Amino acid sequence: MSELRQDPTTNDWIIVAKERTQRPVQFARTENRAPLPEHDPSCPFCPGNEARTPPEAWAYRTGRANEQGWWVRTIPNKFPALRPEGSLERRMENGLFRTMQGVGHHEVVIETPSHNTPIPFMPDGQVEEVVLMYRDRYLALRDDPRVKYLILFKNSGERAGTSLLHPHSQLVATPIVPPYIRRKHEVATQYFDNTGKCVYCEMRDEELRAGTRVVLETERFVVIHPFASRYPFETWILPKAHHPSFGQIAVPEAKEFARVLKATLLKLWKALNGPDYNYILHTIPLKDENEEYYLWHAQIIPRIAHMAGFEMGSGIYITTALPEETAEVMRKAEGE
Amino acid sequence: MSELRQDPTTNDWIIVAKERTQRPVQFARTENRAPLPEHDPSCPFCPGNEARTPPEAWAYRTGRANEQGWWVRTIPNKFPALRPEGSLERRMENGLFRTMQGVGHHEVVIETPSHNTPIPFMPDGQVEEVVLMYRDRYLALRDDPRVKYLILFKNSGERAGTSLLHPHSQLVATPIVPPYIRRKHEVATQYFDNTGKCVYCEMRDEELRAGTRVVLETERFVVIHPFASRYPFETWILPKAHHPSFGQIAVPEAKEFARVLKATLLKLWKALNGPDYNYILHTIPLKDENEEYYLWHAQIIPRIAHMAGFEMGSGIYITTALPEETAEVMRKAEGE
Repeated sequence: MSELRQDPTTNDWIIVAKERTQRPVQFARTENRAPLPEHDPSCPFCPGNEARTPPEAWAYRTGRANEQGWWVRTIPNKFPALRPEGSLERRMENGLFRTMQGVGHHEVVIETPSHNTPIPFMPDGQVEEVVLMYRDRYLALRDDPRVKYLILFKNSGERAGTSLLHPHSQLVATPIVPPYIRRKHEVATQYFDNTGKCVYCEMRDEELRAGTRVVLETERFVVIHPFASRYPFETWILPKAHHPSFGQIAVPEAKEFARVLKATLLKLWKALNGPDYNYILHTIPLKDENEEYYLWHAQIIPRIAHMAGFEMGSGIYITTALPEETAEVMRKAEGE
Repeated sequence: MSELRQDPTTNDWIIVAKERTQRPVQFARTENRAPLPEHDPSCPFCPGNEARTPPEAWAYRTGRANEQGWWVRTIPNKFPALRPEGSLERRMENGLFRTMQGVGHHEVVIETPSHNTPIPFMPDGQVEEVVLMYRDRYLALRDDPRVKYLILFKNSGERAGTSLLHPHSQLVATPIVPPYIRRKHEVATQYFDNTGKCVYCEMRDEELRAGTRVVLETERFVVIHPFASRYPFETWILPKAHHPSFGQIAVPEAKEFARVLKATLLKLWKALNGPDYNYILHTIPLKDENEEYYLWHAQIIPRIAHMAGFEMGSGIYITTALPEETAEVMRKAEGE
């Protein structure tokens, strides 16, 4: 008998199909990757090729802009989904088809000069610099009054939707609050109105009490496989302090987050033999940064299984792994 | 400059990033598949292996149940996500974690005895029988009072989430109306309340007037690449008659739908060199079958690009192909 579980943060239902369960270890990649060189002369993100990207928006560096000497470098995406020009006006055709221009920002954070050193294998200090860059760019783009929402994310590996192998993440600043975010925040607002509490904080505390789905706990962060996981090995990193916005993260907290992110990604790497994955920093819409109903958090999604017609048609996810079992695998996996 | 387009049926926004556009033809598969045998003795869906599946729920056949002689055969899924036993009661743990038992149905429609004949290459009569089987199973499972929603779908190819190559589709009957469906239907209901019209019918008629995104039109059906396509070559088949539920399809309409489905899948096959794909029959929740706000339709999604972190985190899809251009490619592709 399978079980349906409801995600308290979205009210979505997830089917946990025990009878379809494979042992967690069977999710691991079976093929091995070809090793990458430390430097690839054909890679536009490698040092020496700075002229092949748009001029940098921000870099941690010695030397002059758009030359070598950087250790984290942010550039506008060469093929942007959104760009900082145009009008926010909506147009409606025939009462049915609404459009607007693609106004916003689309940046790429090049996380390291090293072509073959992803976050799990970086020195702690380098990961800290990456997260501080996230914070800097968040704070910079938040000042653009056209921007309504900021999403930081990483696509790692072909199955996760990336085409370039050099370690990088992306930041998109949208001119609308995405409807999906609106719906999540409606659920959280309703919970807050009913109880006076943040549903994410309540969930984090309940996961800590239950313990079975906790992967890692540090002074300021909790890592869990959530009760209603949509994907096998879906992992959330939640801060203990109640900050709705990632923009409110203080520098010491950012550095601790970096170390927790690295340890968690290393555990995933060990548990699943280097899976493709996405991570997303979920935060509150900019206008609501002082509202109490939300808690910023990171979501990591290993791309093990392909989404199929049922999920695409219903929004109900079938997962074949119990988060209680996968969290146990993660606890045992090496993380530092 | 990219463009944002709003889907009138969900109010979601899609980013059409012209600057990221690849030419449509570049979406085609580049590798060729190994040809399959007509009969695979190791395949549980091939004739002669009937005993390796659960006992059939329904079959079009000569001879006795669970022996050879069938041409379309429906069986309960051997590893079901839901099964027709248990309680519909919700349980709540600690005021936060809601669960219920996995009650429902999960069936597999084996579309043909031939291991290597997918729908685009079947005789018309065989596709008609497949669609009539969809209708029979829809009507049979609809009588179970525990069932709230029925979703018919197909996963074709590894990227689309299937593990078995033998042509088959699936039917899942859920004990809840999926929240995603609730939200879609809220948008459609609101549109109906405002205008007295079905938003899907309005969209279909507007697409017919515009013409640029129409792939195919027959006596009873329209095939389009919708204005706010989420995926390159996303294709919808809409009936001209206003029926909210797939269960209301009459036999002659079902047969015409079969021929349109086959022609559309063949065009996709030719345009994209046999892509992996999903299709989904979207219908109304069972209790609402007589409501006017909805129109059943089929959605076909070629699995060309992988969903990335931005889509997963925001619900906004970035597509790199204009539906006006891909519809043109489809119009020219051979469909019969």
